[in-house]
Amino acid sequence: MVQPSTMEADVVVVGAGLSGMTAARKLLGAGLVPLVLEADERVGGRILTQEVMPGVPVELGAQWIGDTHERMFRLAAELGVETYPQYDQGETSYELVDSGVLRENEFHSRFESELQELALVLKRLDVLAADVPVEAPWTAPRALEWDAFTAGAWYDAQGLSPVARNLLEICTVGILAVPTAEVSFLHLLFTIKTCGVTSELFAESEGGAQTTRFIGGTSEIPNRLAALIADHIVLDMPVQLIEHTADSVTVHCRGGVIARGRRAIVAISPTLAGRIMYDPPLPGIRDQLTQRLPNGSAMKAFFVYDEPFWRKDGFNGQLISDIGPARMSNDTCLPGDDHGVILLFLEGDQARTCGRLPESERREALTAELVRHYGGRAAKPEFYVDGEWSERQWTRGCYNANHGPHVWTTYGPALTTPIGVIHWASTDTATYWSAYMEGAVDAGERAAAAVIAELS
Amino acid sequence: MVQPSTMEADVVVVGAGLSGMTAARKLLGAGLVPLVLEADERVGGRILTQEVMPGVPVELGAQWIGDTHERMFRLAAELGVETYPQYDQGETSYELVDSGVLRENEFHSRFESELQELALVLKRLDVLAADVPVEAPWTAPRALEWDAFTAGAWYDAQGLSPVARNLLEICTVGILAVPTAEVSFLHLLFTIKTCGVTSELFAESEGGAQTTRFIGGTSEIPNRLAALIADHIVLDMPVQLIEHTADSVTVHCRGGVIARGRRAIVAISPTLAGRIMYDPPLPGIRDQLTQRLPNGSAMKAFFVYDEPFWRKDGFNGQLISDIGPARMSNDTCLPGDDHGVILLFLEGDQARTCGRLPESERREALTAELVRHYGGRAAKPEFYVDGEWSERQWTRGCYNANHGPHVWTTYGPALTTPIGVIHWASTDTATYWSAYMEGAVDAGERAAAAVIAELS
Repeated sequence: MVQPSTMEADVVVVGAGLSGMTAARKLLGAGLVPLVLEADERVGGRILTQEVMPGVPVELGAQWIGDTHERMFRLAAELGVETYPQYDQGETSYELVDSGVLRENEFHSRFESELQELALVLKRLDVLAADVPVEAPWTAPRALEWDAFTAGAWYDAQGLSPVARNLLEICTVGILAVPTAEVSFLHLLFTIKTCGVTSELFAESEGGAQTTRFIGGTSEIPNRLAALIADHIVLDMPVQLIEHTADSVTVHCRGGVIARGRRAIVAISPTLAGRIMYDPPLPGIRDQLTQRLPNGSAMKAFFVYDEPFWRKDGFNGQLISDIGPARMSNDTCLPGDDHGVILLFLEGDQARTCGRLPESERREALTAELVRHYGGRAAKPEFYVDGEWSERQWTRGCYNANHGPHVWTTYGPALTTPIGVIHWASTDTATYWSAYMEGAVDAGERAAAAVIAELS
Repeated sequence: MVQPSTMEADVVVVGAGLSGMTAARKLLGAGLVPLVLEADERVGGRILTQEVMPGVPVELGAQWIGDTHERMFRLAAELGVETYPQYDQGETSYELVDSGVLRENEFHSRFESELQELALVLKRLDVLAADVPVEAPWTAPRALEWDAFTAGAWYDAQGLSPVARNLLEICTVGILAVPTAEVSFLHLLFTIKTCGVTSELFAESEGGAQTTRFIGGTSEIPNRLAALIADHIVLDMPVQLIEHTADSVTVHCRGGVIARGRRAIVAISPTLAGRIMYDPPLPGIRDQLTQRLPNGSAMKAFFVYDEPFWRKDGFNGQLISDIGPARMSNDTCLPGDDHGVILLFLEGDQARTCGRLPESERREALTAELVRHYGGRAAKPEFYVDGEWSERQWTRGCYNANHGPHVWTTYGPALTTPIGVIHWASTDTATYWSAYMEGAVDAGERAAAAVIAELS
């Protein structure tokens, strides 16, 4: 990594997440010199693998890619990171609307008509989402209408049974990490459109967003990427101020370090980008946008057992529950390791309420939930770890920036439009799989391409 | 004003708005030494009087106080700032729901039943608001329910005529400066409760929030307050970082200047408070709160004429319109001056759309509106000026912080609870007339009292 004394570059990139490092690498490839300033002591941003015992890395952050994540498959291949498929043999366990705990087959036969309702609603969403231009959602023919109410209000108006409505809430919150009552319906449609269709977004199996994992952990991706551009990354360098002219930026970091360049790419979430001081100050529309894009509330909790005992009982390790505290789970065992690892998701309200309990209380409540689904063996993990992203100073919430009502239609153009020599990246600004790693790469490449075009 | 070399104090106050200076003065009175760091080149924050021609100061920011603003009346008296009553002789002019322009008497007789609907809804609001504890709105018996939908959704559900619904929207946006579809119903009730009842909040005449103005302009208040504590204020000193321990703060400003104290009071709007770096970092609940309290969108536009010609025609200078672009106006003539000054409000959507037009287009649209109400003379002002608060770097929106759904109930306690040695002020944290100057004083006094109790 470079020393602070050499802080001159063509392009100063703020943030060594996947988006910023992708941008930096592309700039390098075009013969431009990038300098990536990272506030944290590590690269990777919302990707964070933690080895909790030898050979057992767990993903506190981004974990999966899906079949249509072509940029990520390409990147992994280039970096020599191998992939493996998500385990999905066996049944999901359900616990919904006072039905008690039910195995998937039982659940499906008991709630056949409710699941048909759900399928119809998802089809309806696909039809509506098809009309949202991902580059400019505010230009959709019905944008003003759709941006005036919430996804939750639209769901409520579909006349659904409690089972269908709750399933819809659970799978949507599983993506957006805020209650649907906080999400603009236009933003839900935008999210669906950037991912293709609902079956890709929500499905856990073929075609979905969560089919594939990385050998060694997701952090292999940012770590190897960082190794390729190590001379151009400085860690522990929080940016406080960006001075900009018609052809230059001067970036001031905590501690007085200064970096100079011809362009800047700010590759952090919009709410964090809004915390940087800009001189001259940015236009009101950009500033008020960043006030209106709060990061979601997400937390992951991992239980590590001596073996994946649920598999023997015919379970795939996935649970879906409206009792909780976790609404969903996954089998996240590792290839070549005998441990059983189960991941519980706390998102939206659950992250907020359960995330603020003492760890022991949270662990106890989650253990009880696992025991309901998988029996007494679930009560005896070898290891437990969890992580809530709003506590992390340089992230402050996951998975991404939420758009409430009116944000897209009144502030939308300010999300990606460069301001003078300052460009914007991060997955929150992507038009393909926004909020995913794929979107981070998409956004980083887009910002880099724009800068390259300007400087060549 | 002090020189940067003397930056030691008992209490470092961030922000020389009314709240911060009130706190500083109270601290001084208790024998503690405050140091107020102001990012801007002036004091006053959201109070900003601009003399547009000799003897014609107009209020780009806070303008009025109301009969129950006891702290402000006391402060004005102490500072020797005289007050005068808002002009309210004559009729309001209406333009609603394709009725064309109507004088108040005509409007009232044509829409008598609609106005009765409105009065009933306001009564209903008063009854509900009575159940909201202003110190902790999230503890209201129906808090979870009320915080799950918007004020707009509640209005929509009242079965109102278009006239009553539009009037309700206009008067509410006139207070909150965001469309009611963005406001939690619980927050509307909280706002009403901090002000007493709807008749005080919405009324322009007796008992209302806008009965009284200040001779010389509202800025007389912060300017004279600043003069009293001039040795304790530093301008042009944006705070970037607050390091804090169990008994001290070290505050770092742009340019490397450092201020040390035993406590800090951060007296700026929550969204701006969230942009400061804190070391150690603040808890996630506080951080995500500040991501979820965007400032409103407000703009004032002033037309100055040779005389208040509308008065002769029996108008009070107030218009109420759902055509716009301005939804409301006021006669803001000055005592002892012959000019006619009319103020047009652009709030919420109007501030966003109209505020982004070139000034000439905005002025033209507003002129056309005035001509519709007051005739051809309105087309020939001597002077025009406007100001949109999101463009101002150290304010970034008015009138105050908006609480969307779920903010109060999931993040509420973090709004005012001190974190270690860091206390929070600004009108957005007040429990009496929050969002008003009265609230700024209330919050400043509350924070100062807490600090005094800790340090004595």
